[in-house]
Amino acid sequence: MHLHLRDGDMCRLTTPLSAEYFSGAVIMPNLVPPVTEFDSMDAYRTRILEAAGAHAESFTPLMTLFFKNQTRATLEAARARESFFALKLYPAGATTNSDGGVTDFGEAEATFRAMEDLGIPLLVHGESHGFVMDREAEFLPTYRRLAQTFPRLKICMEHITTAAALSLLDEFENVFATVTLQHLLITLDDVAGGMLRPHLFCKPIAKRPEDRSALLAAALSGHPKLMFGSDSAPHPRHKKECCGCAAGVFTAPVALPALADLFAKNNALDKLQDFVGGNARRIYGLKTAPKKVVLEDKPCPVPAVYEGYGEHVVPMFAGENLAWSVVA
Amino acid sequence: MHLHLRDGDMCRLTTPLSAEYFSGAVIMPNLVPPVTEFDSMDAYRTRILEAAGAHAESFTPLMTLFFKNQTRATLEAARARESFFALKLYPAGATTNSDGGVTDFGEAEATFRAMEDLGIPLLVHGESHGFVMDREAEFLPTYRRLAQTFPRLKICMEHITTAAALSLLDEFENVFATVTLQHLLITLDDVAGGMLRPHLFCKPIAKRPEDRSALLAAALSGHPKLMFGSDSAPHPRHKKECCGCAAGVFTAPVALPALADLFAKNNALDKLQDFVGGNARRIYGLKTAPKKVVLEDKPCPVPAVYEGYGEHVVPMFAGENLAWSVVA
Repeated sequence: MHLHLRDGDMCRLTTPLSAEYFSGAVIMPNLVPPVTEFDSMDAYRTRILEAAGAHAESFTPLMTLFFKNQTRATLEAARARESFFALKLYPAGATTNSDGGVTDFGEAEATFRAMEDLGIPLLVHGESHGFVMDREAEFLPTYRRLAQTFPRLKICMEHITTAAALSLLDEFENVFATVTLQHLLITLDDVAGGMLRPHLFCKPIAKRPEDRSALLAAALSGHPKLMFGSDSAPHPRHKKECCGCAAGVFTAPVALPALADLFAKNNALDKLQDFVGGNARRIYGLKTAPKKVVLEDKPCPVPAVYEGYGEHVVPMFAGENLAWSVVA
Repeated sequence: MHLHLRDGDMCRLTTPLSAEYFSGAVIMPNLVPPVTEFDSMDAYRTRILEAAGAHAESFTPLMTLFFKNQTRATLEAARARESFFALKLYPAGATTNSDGGVTDFGEAEATFRAMEDLGIPLLVHGESHGFVMDREAEFLPTYRRLAQTFPRLKICMEHITTAAALSLLDEFENVFATVTLQHLLITLDDVAGGMLRPHLFCKPIAKRPEDRSALLAAALSGHPKLMFGSDSAPHPRHKKECCGCAAGVFTAPVALPALADLFAKNNALDKLQDFVGGNARRIYGLKTAPKKVVLEDKPCPVPAVYEGYGEHVVPMFAGENLAWSVVA
């Protein structure tokens, strides 16, 4: 429910790695320039389906537009398009390619109202510009205000990383959340506690052990408002292993076996399907064609790097063995 | 008062960069293998003085031994050597090359008692094995216990990074501290708040804005128990810009101009000399020959990399201009 496929050669490399195993994905619009118009959205969707190749038939890109105080007329036109799914809101400068994001939530109110009326979900990168460990917590009052002011607006807190964010799910009926694979597994210790590990560096940054525990417990218990969103975010290897490393973990090709392993170890395999897709189908009323994927507890080696079209991307668990495999 | 010169080619590259501008430095013993014996300490000192070249005459390496529950007899022999300064204690595994460090503080008590009797300072890397942001705070009870149990033992909390550690200086007469240049300037935001910046990654990791503020205020106000210790910690460039980056910031060649700039900006230039050397001379009764260094507020370009003897090290402020220069 939260995927970066990038564009160009990177999109050609990464798209089949998601399209093979997922029936659909919410495609993030923070390209350069961001996807703000129908034309660019349609063209991007076409490039994604071309890149999906043989899997295009069974893969639905759920397209998003970059939140830009869109008018009601624009939103009405958006809703009329089958390919359109939601608006993605970035506070200006909060993450990769988000400089054109929102600076004034007051000015965005008419758009929120129209989205609420039209039933268009609002997906939010919820971080302040404060100290890196506090950014999500500092954004929670904004979620609260939005949820109260627009009680029929479906608000999704994307890639939550804290126990505090999780608590909002129970506080407001109209607030939902996605969580990534890495935030169920790692803390800041894994990024910067021993050696510095750029391939585990992402935004929002991995937080404290008690945050990870709370997120994992919610996922394993089958929290009905928590959805898997990998936030798989490929960057070329040379932009990760350098002196100004870009934020993002590339998890798309390892997500399903890694989740199967995690849920199996915790005797929660019965909760996996709803976490990966069922909750999202129910929450958003998605009608993407179902896809059957068979996972088995047999080892699966993860490549050190995914290469193609001149791109090199290092996945999470690079060079390791996962305990589970996708077998069909 | 806290310097890593490394060994071999790296030592040849880094030593003159300190020896030119400092009259002495406390040399850390965490080589591979660590400096635990007089023979290796003496040999290391000889290599350092050779590397210092023309500056050897005016540079005193204050040698440390790696804390290994040394006997009273060993400590008596150590104290008799002019080149010996202190023991450096590492909790096992706390930082670079510290695997042979202390695992049981109870077993170390006889050594602490002998050090106290003999007037040998105890320099401590004070971190627990907990969550990276909590490690220093979790170690503070150990400092408290040591300070209370051995009230005549001079304990130096090396490279402190938190406001909480600072407060121990006022709590115990026999507790002192060093602080690095980078911990007066940066927080975790500078390491991982935007892009990931491996050249600012060190142990202990930079902490919160309120920690930096407290450390800076103490330094600028001339706290009599706080000493500059650069913890300048060179690593070859390929071990910093990679997928498992080593911890350490290389500040030795930029420390004096950067500190002059920082103290000047805050109208505290009159406090700089005591911070850089005076406090340490008084606290430890050092008798290293004084060295005159003249700093001026004129721009000084920092090289992108220091090269020599086949080594490449990237300093803090690489490629930037510092506002102050060492002019003589």
